[in-house]
Amino acid sequence: MNMTSQVIPQALERLIQDLCKLPGIGQKTASRLALNILRRPAGEARELANALAELHSSIQLCSCCFTFSQNDPCAICADHKRDQALVCVVEQPGDLLAIENAGNYRGHYHILHGVLSPMDGIGPAEIKVKELEARINSGTIKEVFIATSSTVPGEATASFLLDRLQHRAIRITRLACGIPMGMDIKYADKHTLARAIESRSESR
Amino acid sequence: MNMTSQVIPQALERLIQDLCKLPGIGQKTASRLALNILRRPAGEARELANALAELHSSIQLCSCCFTFSQNDPCAICADHKRDQALVCVVEQPGDLLAIENAGNYRGHYHILHGVLSPMDGIGPAEIKVKELEARINSGTIKEVFIATSSTVPGEATASFLLDRLQHRAIRITRLACGIPMGMDIKYADKHTLARAIESRSESR
Repeated sequence: MNMTSQVIPQALERLIQDLCKLPGIGQKTASRLALNILRRPAGEARELANALAELHSSIQLCSCCFTFSQNDPCAICADHKRDQALVCVVEQPGDLLAIENAGNYRGHYHILHGVLSPMDGIGPAEIKVKELEARINSGTIKEVFIATSSTVPGEATASFLLDRLQHRAIRITRLACGIPMGMDIKYADKHTLARAIESRSESR
Repeated sequence: MNMTSQVIPQALERLIQDLCKLPGIGQKTASRLALNILRRPAGEARELANALAELHSSIQLCSCCFTFSQNDPCAICADHKRDQALVCVVEQPGDLLAIENAGNYRGHYHILHGVLSPMDGIGPAEIKVKELEARINSGTIKEVFIATSSTVPGEATASFLLDRLQHRAIRITRLACGIPMGMDIKYADKHTLARAIESRSESR
């Protein structure tokens, strides 16, 4: 225990260490956030605490598309006005939100919950590939629109899916070029993303 | 309510909005953090929620130096091995932590909880100036070491304190040059800060 940790109240130190576990939050940012929270009314901290405590208990995975959802099936899977024959395959629920935000996609989704990454021991069994094939087997899907990120593992996962699905009598499309290479699709601006959705290309 | 907010589960949206209130956290960062928290075990979110909920209830202001503390007086004010005749005046508790981290200061502190800012209606009565004068009146203090940030309001506050205290029979010192102008002292590296503490200069 160094001198500084003696002068930091235990409750503050604990919050700083917990905030440090979040992505992109280091020791300095965590201290700044924690001190800011402490300077503001206790009600705001309690409100944030409640939001965190209730997060996992009120959200589940949709058993059809595997996005985070309050209900099962999720609002998108339950929406019969959307095109059930078109399924957009993305890496994570955040990617679904980015595509919804672009505003011009009216099909369904399938969340892989990861990308292939042999170095980290993540193969096809670790992401929702089997579940995608089961949905295709059920017969309603006519087009699988692959929208993994244009990163190395995202591209590898897209190639793998193309290989795996190309013998099937369905259309397979890819998100069009327009997204800068190496950029995660969550961070693309919505107009670029909308254009890439519009001009999505045939993969075979 | 736009289309996106219909597909974001309510509990997730609520957490995102709460995270957005923190300094330096925008909509995109908040979404990224919230989705990351959701992907990780529920136990971690609950741990963070508990840390937040207990923050204000277990931390108070030290009635002597006004820093955030588990006990009253705080660990520093209660430490008789530290020099009681020397008091370092800082803007916020975070500045105290930065100075403690530099490792070469062995005096006490006085937290102003703000800087003079006439545009925001913050005058001497809104920061802990009266309380500092009361401590000086009690007679133990022989040196007031002003360590406000070298920003415009920080400098203005230092000048005000110098004016207000210069008729007293105590030494008044300032944190030495060495901190880049315009930089908040919390973000200075500890070696620069240690040198500035070492060569603090007489203010009159």
